[in-house]
Amino acid sequence: MSIGEFELIRRFFNRPPRRFDVVEGIGDDCALLKPQAGKCLAMTVDTLVEGVHFLPGTNPENLGHKALAVSLSDLAAMGAAPAWVTLALSLPETDENWLGGFANGFRSLADHYGVELVGGDTTRGPLSITVQAVGLVGEEGALRRSSARWGDGIYLTGELGLAGLGLEILLGNSALQVPEAVAKLERPQPRVNAGLSLAGFANACIDVSDGLAADLGHILKASGVGATLDWTALPMPSPVRQYIEMGGDEWMPLRAGDDYELCFTVSTEREDALVSRMADFGSSCVRIGRIDQQMGLRLRKGGGVFDMAAMGYKHFTNGA
Amino acid sequence: MSIGEFELIRRFFNRPPRRFDVVEGIGDDCALLKPQAGKCLAMTVDTLVEGVHFLPGTNPENLGHKALAVSLSDLAAMGAAPAWVTLALSLPETDENWLGGFANGFRSLADHYGVELVGGDTTRGPLSITVQAVGLVGEEGALRRSSARWGDGIYLTGELGLAGLGLEILLGNSALQVPEAVAKLERPQPRVNAGLSLAGFANACIDVSDGLAADLGHILKASGVGATLDWTALPMPSPVRQYIEMGGDEWMPLRAGDDYELCFTVSTEREDALVSRMADFGSSCVRIGRIDQQMGLRLRKGGGVFDMAAMGYKHFTNGA
Repeated sequence: MSIGEFELIRRFFNRPPRRFDVVEGIGDDCALLKPQAGKCLAMTVDTLVEGVHFLPGTNPENLGHKALAVSLSDLAAMGAAPAWVTLALSLPETDENWLGGFANGFRSLADHYGVELVGGDTTRGPLSITVQAVGLVGEEGALRRSSARWGDGIYLTGELGLAGLGLEILLGNSALQVPEAVAKLERPQPRVNAGLSLAGFANACIDVSDGLAADLGHILKASGVGATLDWTALPMPSPVRQYIEMGGDEWMPLRAGDDYELCFTVSTEREDALVSRMADFGSSCVRIGRIDQQMGLRLRKGGGVFDMAAMGYKHFTNGA
Repeated sequence: MSIGEFELIRRFFNRPPRRFDVVEGIGDDCALLKPQAGKCLAMTVDTLVEGVHFLPGTNPENLGHKALAVSLSDLAAMGAAPAWVTLALSLPETDENWLGGFANGFRSLADHYGVELVGGDTTRGPLSITVQAVGLVGEEGALRRSSARWGDGIYLTGELGLAGLGLEILLGNSALQVPEAVAKLERPQPRVNAGLSLAGFANACIDVSDGLAADLGHILKASGVGATLDWTALPMPSPVRQYIEMGGDEWMPLRAGDDYELCFTVSTEREDALVSRMADFGSSCVRIGRIDQQMGLRLRKGGGVFDMAAMGYKHFTNGA
């Protein structure tokens, strides 16, 4: 490497902490953090490996953004306010342009949500990024997967399938020109404010990282319930509808990951208050179905009801 | 992969949490943790990459132990009591024997110190292990690098150079047969109890991961002081002395990393109480030198004083 590890960290990532709860930031054996009294910590870790989670040659600024976004999305799915992150970066070589771009993308998103990078490790090795994020949430308000109840409305923030379309375009499987689809794949917006608005209000919540069918499936399994979705209610943007009309996989919006929207359930008596509550946090959502007593996941489409398990439910999950 | 990610995590790592402060362990979008009121969090992250930090073919049980040990060592160097860890594991393929061994080594050490694995991510990719660890420490008791004071005694737990000798043996650079040297390299014992005994008592502390000269150098730089070490006081076990007598690099014990001992400084008026205080925690240490007003790191050896900066101080650091 042309510059040493310590110099590299200093140049691109060190700066005085901005959060009052960071007693010591980068530079000692550990960071020292002072959590807010009475709050729980929500903690998550995610790894992105070149060639597995992103294509070789991905723009480093987008990658810096996405590496942090996927962890903030997990915090959002618990209803937690993001606080501190660490970054473990394996790099085959020290490319200062690449690092500068990566750091810019990472820092911009961190600053937007007031998140502080408090520790890291840089090593030589195949390109791989591991981000651990810690957020704060009241114990009672935390959003679990296991708390969906019979009769709950099932809601989704944002739209479905755009990131999946972006991947199809990047892989050359679709001739559509949809820059916003590629942008949604490469620079997903974690639904942090939506998560905060749902803490203590929604029953169950998950972020859509592996595809709606798979991720909602985790809620159903953990909660011991089933669900029926309405095809017409799925918020598919027009390029996704166009992709399907042109012969693309019609299940793609249910199967594709990387949308990083929140899928959550709300008790019927709270549904009327939901929209205005989310609007107060600058967020919005649509209802896409309802929790049933009958186990399994069903889809109402064109007058019929498809049993997604019988259709090969496993095929809706991404490979590990 | 022959078994999916969720199944893999479940089989090798899931179990009901044992710590009362783990509200939710593995299985949701985030772990939920309830930190002890009034304590600070000490947080650290370390990555081990095959071919960089360990040799290909390293025994998986030893690797599971070491991946956790290096992070617990960072917590010890802050005087923190280890609490929760996350594990991000990149594997080229799913080898159940390898995973079983790795999980055994990891879990044994975690159980020994009452640490709970609360989250993880497994991905396909070149073999790489990232562990993040969080410990608890009082804000006033936390051991920084920047608090060494003129006149402090400089102390070291355990012995020096044994891990370095182990690496020389594994690389075929030494014909000595010293199983305990290889064991010290592959299964380092983090000085958790020593760190707890030093919290609020020592002035500055660091763990020896990059070599004593480099790591003590971090304390000196952060504290704005210098130091003189006594060669005869360095606690080198007989195989290390034998390695030097047989023509091996005499600076190896100062240069080699991976010992994971604690190097710390103590005010003169507290030195008398140090040994019995550490003994109460089942630990011990020796004095190897003293903090000077004069900047830089010096070594008293054979009647002379060597300026380690003039000798090429940078050469005592491992490459990044």
